[in-house]
Amino acid sequence: MIVLLKKDPDGKQLQNLIDWLKSMSLDIHISKGSNYTVLGLIGDTSAVDIELIQALDIVESVKRIQEPFKSCNRKFHPDDTVIDINGVKIGGGHFQMIAGPCSVESEAQVLAVARCVKAAGATILRGGAFKPRSSPYAFQGLRDAGIKLLLEAKAVVGLPIVTEIMDISQLHLFEEVDIIQVGARNMQNFELLKALGKTSKPILLKRGLSSTIDELLMSAEYIMASGNEKVILCERGIRTFETHTRNTLDISAVPILKNLSHLPVIVDPSHATGMAALVPPMSLAATAAGADGLIIEVHNDPPHALCDGAQSMTPEGFAALAPRILKIAGLVREGAV
Amino acid sequence: MIVLLKKDPDGKQLQNLIDWLKSMSLDIHISKGSNYTVLGLIGDTSAVDIELIQALDIVESVKRIQEPFKSCNRKFHPDDTVIDINGVKIGGGHFQMIAGPCSVESEAQVLAVARCVKAAGATILRGGAFKPRSSPYAFQGLRDAGIKLLLEAKAVVGLPIVTEIMDISQLHLFEEVDIIQVGARNMQNFELLKALGKTSKPILLKRGLSSTIDELLMSAEYIMASGNEKVILCERGIRTFETHTRNTLDISAVPILKNLSHLPVIVDPSHATGMAALVPPMSLAATAAGADGLIIEVHNDPPHALCDGAQSMTPEGFAALAPRILKIAGLVREGAV
Amino acid sequence: MIVLLKKDPDGKQLQNLIDWLKSMSLDIHISKGSNYTVLGLIGDTSAVDIELIQALDIVESVKRIQEPFKSCNRKFHPDDTVIDINGVKIGGGHFQMIAGPCSVESEAQVLAVARCVKAAGATILRGGAFKPRSSPYAFQGLRDAGIKLLLEAKAVVGLPIVTEIMDISQLHLFEEVDIIQVGARNMQNFELLKALGKTSKPILLKRGLSSTIDELLMSAEYIMASGNEKVILCERGIRTFETHTRNTLDISAVPILKNLSHLPVIVDPSHATGMAALVPPMSLAATAAGADGLIIEVHNDPPHALCDGAQSMTPEGFAALAPRILKIAGLVREGAV
Amino acid sequence: MIVLLKKDPDGKQLQNLIDWLKSMSLDIHISKGSNYTVLGLIGDTSAVDIELIQALDIVESVKRIQEPFKSCNRKFHPDDTVIDINGVKIGGGHFQMIAGPCSVESEAQVLAVARCVKAAGATILRGGAFKPRSSPYAFQGLRDAGIKLLLEAKAVVGLPIVTEIMDISQLHLFEEVDIIQVGARNMQNFELLKALGKTSKPILLKRGLSSTIDELLMSAEYIMASGNEKVILCERGIRTFETHTRNTLDISAVPILKNLSHLPVIVDPSHATGMAALVPPMSLAATAAGADGLIIEVHNDPPHALCDGAQSMTPEGFAALAPRILKIAGLVREGAV
Repeated sequence: MIVLLKKDPDGKQLQNLIDWLKSMSLDIHISKGSNYTVLGLIGDTSAVDIELIQALDIVESVKRIQEPFKSCNRKFHPDDTVIDINGVKIGGGHFQMIAGPCSVESEAQVLAVARCVKAAGATILRGGAFKPRSSPYAFQGLRDAGIKLLLEAKAVVGLPIVTEIMDISQLHLFEEVDIIQVGARNMQNFELLKALGKTSKPILLKRGLSSTIDELLMSAEYIMASGNEKVILCERGIRTFETHTRNTLDISAVPILKNLSHLPVIVDPSHATGMAALVPPMSLAATAAGADGLIIEVHNDPPHALCDGAQSMTPEGFAALAPRILKIAGLVREGAV
Repeated sequence: MIVLLKKDPDGKQLQNLIDWLKSMSLDIHISKGSNYTVLGLIGDTSAVDIELIQALDIVESVKRIQEPFKSCNRKFHPDDTVIDINGVKIGGGHFQMIAGPCSVESEAQVLAVARCVKAAGATILRGGAFKPRSSPYAFQGLRDAGIKLLLEAKAVVGLPIVTEIMDISQLHLFEEVDIIQVGARNMQNFELLKALGKTSKPILLKRGLSSTIDELLMSAEYIMASGNEKVILCERGIRTFETHTRNTLDISAVPILKNLSHLPVIVDPSHATGMAALVPPMSLAATAAGADGLIIEVHNDPPHALCDGAQSMTPEGFAALAPRILKIAGLVREGAV
Repeated sequence: MIVLLKKDPDGKQLQNLIDWLKSMSLDIHISKGSNYTVLGLIGDTSAVDIELIQALDIVESVKRIQEPFKSCNRKFHPDDTVIDINGVKIGGGHFQMIAGPCSVESEAQVLAVARCVKAAGATILRGGAFKPRSSPYAFQGLRDAGIKLLLEAKAVVGLPIVTEIMDISQLHLFEEVDIIQVGARNMQNFELLKALGKTSKPILLKRGLSSTIDELLMSAEYIMASGNEKVILCERGIRTFETHTRNTLDISAVPILKNLSHLPVIVDPSHATGMAALVPPMSLAATAAGADGLIIEVHNDPPHALCDGAQSMTPEGFAALAPRILKIAGLVREGAV
Repeated sequence: MIVLLKKDPDGKQLQNLIDWLKSMSLDIHISKGSNYTVLGLIGDTSAVDIELIQALDIVESVKRIQEPFKSCNRKFHPDDTVIDINGVKIGGGHFQMIAGPCSVESEAQVLAVARCVKAAGATILRGGAFKPRSSPYAFQGLRDAGIKLLLEAKAVVGLPIVTEIMDISQLHLFEEVDIIQVGARNMQNFELLKALGKTSKPILLKRGLSSTIDELLMSAEYIMASGNEKVILCERGIRTFETHTRNTLDISAVPILKNLSHLPVIVDPSHATGMAALVPPMSLAATAAGADGLIIEVHNDPPHALCDGAQSMTPEGFAALAPRILKIAGLVREGAV
């Protein structure tokens, strides 16, 4: 960390700052120019509060040299993390398609969709039991019963499942769930992240609508710092001024995340765009940009989906799209594109 | 709700839609033009999923006539809600200054700040015990011990207190807390909102960094739909591209919220701007725009605050600012400005 | 256009509105429900000011059924527009790579880069003579002399050229330029758009940093309404809160634009990201999403580029990237992905 | 400027960088730590291209110590600039209300509005002759004839006038105009800014919808660097995700701009919000935040305004608002709030 001081800093305040920094086991290297003084902080600065230093009267600005994240940082873990989900691997060249309905509605619906997406090449089944809805009057998901239906589908169809948790108190219901999803709205629910860090389940962590890439990595860091290193990052669109799409899918986040971190990165084109018609081009684009997987909503009867029907593909649509995705993924893996 | 159909909608799909809408106890009024068909939905449409209807092939667009929020809607409750906090009233012409440290650090610190802000005119004490920090390595607050220090300050200084909850499991610690704060990152933690809706405590609900005004009102609706009507709305800055301030304080949200809803609306200039120097002008601006109160960070030693030092005023600064705020608040109340 | 009136509109105001709409040669279809009245406006509503109608006391909201753009609208021109630039076709299945330096600096530099990018497969040469720079103290381009150097490169290397215009007064310098570029900052310089509409040159119109997709199409409409139908649309990133990239490349704009309009759509990954390392993945992603072309900065000595060095690839980098782009473009054209 | 180098920079590249920096008459101060090397650049760095240096392989990051703007920088001109417009002063404690119609429509209309706003306390008349409209089919203003009507109103009513220029070619029409306005869409029309810098007219420079505060100041710098120091800055709302207002009025820009620069700063609440009902609270807020003036749309017949009717107040509304604004402005000037 580099601290740039204002011209002619007060000597006593400067000494106070240096003493305080030293109390955090940091070495300080001072270099004085005629117009500025620079403090170089040497040691582990990840716990240093950058805003606190910026608040000091004598400080012009502060600049981190090291990223504030460690466990998820590629610098300290150059190899890709590969996460094994009941034999299905993601990351490190392993590309996976996750598909399924937005909401779990009935046994027949989940089974039908699960069979279709498996036949088309999906390797993990998604489905919502607890649904975060902006209105208290909208369908909130089948909750416990939804989890049971997903577990039945897992048993019958043989795909590992991923579903969203909304509160720590629901954690006991997720014992047989293969991947626990943290939704965009809970990306900075730090108590939940800490609790999930104490489990051994793979966590699918979605980027918040207005969260920076660094904040997403810091949220992954919360889980990892608590002991669970199995985090899958998911770009799912950020909030911008454009209204043709529900959110703006930030595909450049894929190469940036993969450069900064060793964790697998997947993309959710369904929630990002909110429109089934945009799922194919954005799925291909995300795959070409190097994503390790996609999570796509597929519903056997989109107009009657109890939520988010607009963004769900039909099974036929997914069956037509899947080989195109896998074609690009194959070319990327081979280094052919 | 008005549903605009595409030209020449398929007859069977149209009948399916009409049957489905009628199954929700809605009356349907159809008007056909040469270029379009419009369905008018009459009845309580607050539970109708607008995105689901938009997903139908035959639908061009859907437009709500009624807002999706009811309990917090001024149309159904024209008079301002006044919330009484141990004798301190907010809303309906009652303006209050809430002040105190970002984080509770020690008994001495809380008591000193509490005495100063009370002397300057603050009527409610704020202080953070549970601190949502983007880094797991940053100070996370004194937690339980912090709540105790606040309750001591309440007993000694005689100001009601407001402090933030981060998870349902902490709720039992808030029994003697006067106002429970829901932070910006938890504005759409719907399970938490529902749990708070079952208490009888006033809830200070902060707008999320990227939440629309409608989403803020829907989150208030979650609390109110669960039975608790004592919600105070708080504008605290939204995330934009501008980097001179931490967030962009959306002061226009104040008159809009007060027009749409009967709930009290306050403003947090400290977190919005992230700079103590901007707190005075933004406090005056928010008050002139009609806010029912302000929540301001004050710290007796800003450079040593364990978090958010950059945005904290000194007690002297607050003592100088408070009468200016109250002068404007008085003029607004009298209708003189 | 559908005008939704408030409940019980004043009769005289309603009649005034109807008379005024009829004066614009619109037919009005009125349908009254118990809770609302809807006016259907039939005829050419593209000149109707939607904000003006919304301002009326008796109006609840207004909804366009027809897009406000006509000439660039795919509904009225279902086939893709193919633009022929000295024998190089773009649009309608014709994919082109445009490449070259950010700024034209010298004859040697332009010729060297032009030869390299042509050898690698680029079919159009880009280069900046007039440079919009946010600082008046930064290099502003070689201006007239830069245009001359580009024309020399065109003559020697045999690639058509595209370069940016910044003001109407420069138009006479563009006589032999093959494509005139309108930069993001000038996307709503309407006087310039009108002037370009009176030429017969292909126009490369870049999306403004904070411009919606509809606004981009309305700017194309300005050019086309003045008589010039040869417009190439270019997505080049929008301004968001994320700071890892200079702008956020909105790849979903590609399929949306191609759905709404018949005009060719290209993508500029260099300016969008501001980082040469992100150009390859974003080029592949944009191509997979269906773009009709790319415009990429290539510089033979990136560190010494007089502007925007950070976003320029080396000729070697471009030579390695180009076949990967063309591979994906080929698969897209064949419908194989 | 501080350049932070990567660990163990290549010696030859470092020497090249140092030589290049010295060629720009900068002194270089090098300080080496074990983990980093810092170059301090001493001298006038305003023409140094920060992005170019960032592009170098050996550079980790670059940080300006000095702002890139000089002429408008308060550090080099501590006193407020006061601009005298035909005897009406703005800045340095002089607060002015600018009011008038969005578009000039007829002699009767301009005169009527001019008389009303003057009677209510406005000291400068605004009115649009050249109108930037997003649609080519919308009313584009009376253009030359509109300027004439404004000049007539100036002669009859005795208020100085401000009106917008859209292209350099219109400049000869502005000889008797008192203040030339540059609209938000032209804030980075650098050729226009340079041309206006060669006039001696006060320039009202509006912030672009997605322009940062620094970019606004750099655009002011363009005008001032060309010789014209009479620039009035205007905050008029930035583009965000919130849709209740047309734009989000960034009132915090007022104290930030006044801190960074000596130029007068005014606020346009009409265009920012797009709703007449929000003009009073936002006018009061902007004044309380320390603005040097306001520019407000007033129309004698809002529903029939040819553009932007929704955001125009009636003369009666303005007459009621003006004394409230002046009351706050007086208190701010006296230091009473």
